[in-house]
Amino acid sequence: MAQQAKIALLIIGDEILSGRTRDINTQVLATRLKAHGAALAEVRIVPDDEMAIVEAVRALASQYDFLVTSGGIGPTHDDITADCIAKAFHRGIDVRDDAKQILSTNYANGEADLNEARLRMARIPDDARLIANPISKAPGFQTENCFTLAGVPRIFETMLDDVLPYIPKGDARHSQSIRIDLPESSIATPLRAIACEYPALAFGSYPFEENGKYGANVVVSGFDESEIDKAIGALKTSFSL
Amino acid sequence: MAQQAKIALLIIGDEILSGRTRDINTQVLATRLKAHGAALAEVRIVPDDEMAIVEAVRALASQYDFLVTSGGIGPTHDDITADCIAKAFHRGIDVRDDAKQILSTNYANGEADLNEARLRMARIPDDARLIANPISKAPGFQTENCFTLAGVPRIFETMLDDVLPYIPKGDARHSQSIRIDLPESSIATPLRAIACEYPALAFGSYPFEENGKYGANVVVSGFDESEIDKAIGALKTSFSL
Repeated sequence: MAQQAKIALLIIGDEILSGRTRDINTQVLATRLKAHGAALAEVRIVPDDEMAIVEAVRALASQYDFLVTSGGIGPTHDDITADCIAKAFHRGIDVRDDAKQILSTNYANGEADLNEARLRMARIPDDARLIANPISKAPGFQTENCFTLAGVPRIFETMLDDVLPYIPKGDARHSQSIRIDLPESSIATPLRAIACEYPALAFGSYPFEENGKYGANVVVSGFDESEIDKAIGALKTSFSL
Repeated sequence: MAQQAKIALLIIGDEILSGRTRDINTQVLATRLKAHGAALAEVRIVPDDEMAIVEAVRALASQYDFLVTSGGIGPTHDDITADCIAKAFHRGIDVRDDAKQILSTNYANGEADLNEARLRMARIPDDARLIANPISKAPGFQTENCFTLAGVPRIFETMLDDVLPYIPKGDARHSQSIRIDLPESSIATPLRAIACEYPALAFGSYPFEENGKYGANVVVSGFDESEIDKAIGALKTSFSL
């Protein structure tokens, strides 16, 4: 039986819930996990609110193999993620020397430039592992099975380089898709029959409209490439493609 | 004290979690709710999996004033949302005449064209209210405080016209934003001081990088426009804008 680690993503940010910003980190994480042989199993988006964050962290970290959080680790008053993570895992939190040292490399005068706001970015839950941030230096951190990353997409993506090595590489999941130029309601019955013949594969049907005509992209995914080939062949035969 | 209904969004779809599709319905719903005087309070994305959907529906419908679901109400075998909603609310589900009649208007020969797959789209949980779908006709439905909509963005957005009238219009939330061309770590301390002076307002700071220089957009939001004006004035004074 093929195995993959299951990962949840918690996006912390009023700006997504207000509609001001459109999330892109979900797609980035999903794509990287897929290439790694792991699965994004659930996403939650919560506001910059302590209780909401702590509850979601506890629920997701206990339910899934790993949790990745995005957002809320900057220097301003609305960046409360680090304290929430410490609380969720019942740990202390304080400015840490190794984080301070890394942070100081970002400023002309080193540690002398670390004002109160900047030092906030060196507050790390006790015993957490620092996660490298080659772009703006301020580190993320891993607390038990929870990876806490910046929300800025370019930094989030770069930090994943220091997250994926800590997630077991699972079996590779493959997928193929075919386009069928018929409305979903015309393909549903034969599609279901073929899906029943390949119980180890997942069959997704995604409708589209193009110039007033309906069609669907059917995506077949699973761990066995030759099975996928066979299923795609069966679809092509069934729909005369 | 200003009041707004709190709404959760549940996105059902393997295609988002696999990275194949980037979600846009969150931003659409957030924007429409904001204009209506209601708040998007949480978003969850779960796979096309019965247990995951049923658990999320029960949790979100009980925790928030309203729940909107997106996706999984088409004609194919992977469209299991209607049955999951019925299960979550302990209701029966069957093909319903009013839904069948509406659906038939989409086809040349009316009900004679309703094959088994199309009839699946007329399966509605007992006693649910139908939600109009002017685009492809197949209705959504409201079960208690839960609105179930199609996931296709254009249809999702249009269906909201028959959802918002059932959500109480709350107090309007306003916001203003200013751009400060200084790194967040330089603005954090005065920003926190001003935020403390206006406890009824929310101050969000969103960093950006432009041509190698750092800055932040500060968004001030709340229910009292004149308070927001004052806070923006205080920020301008503080940062000499």
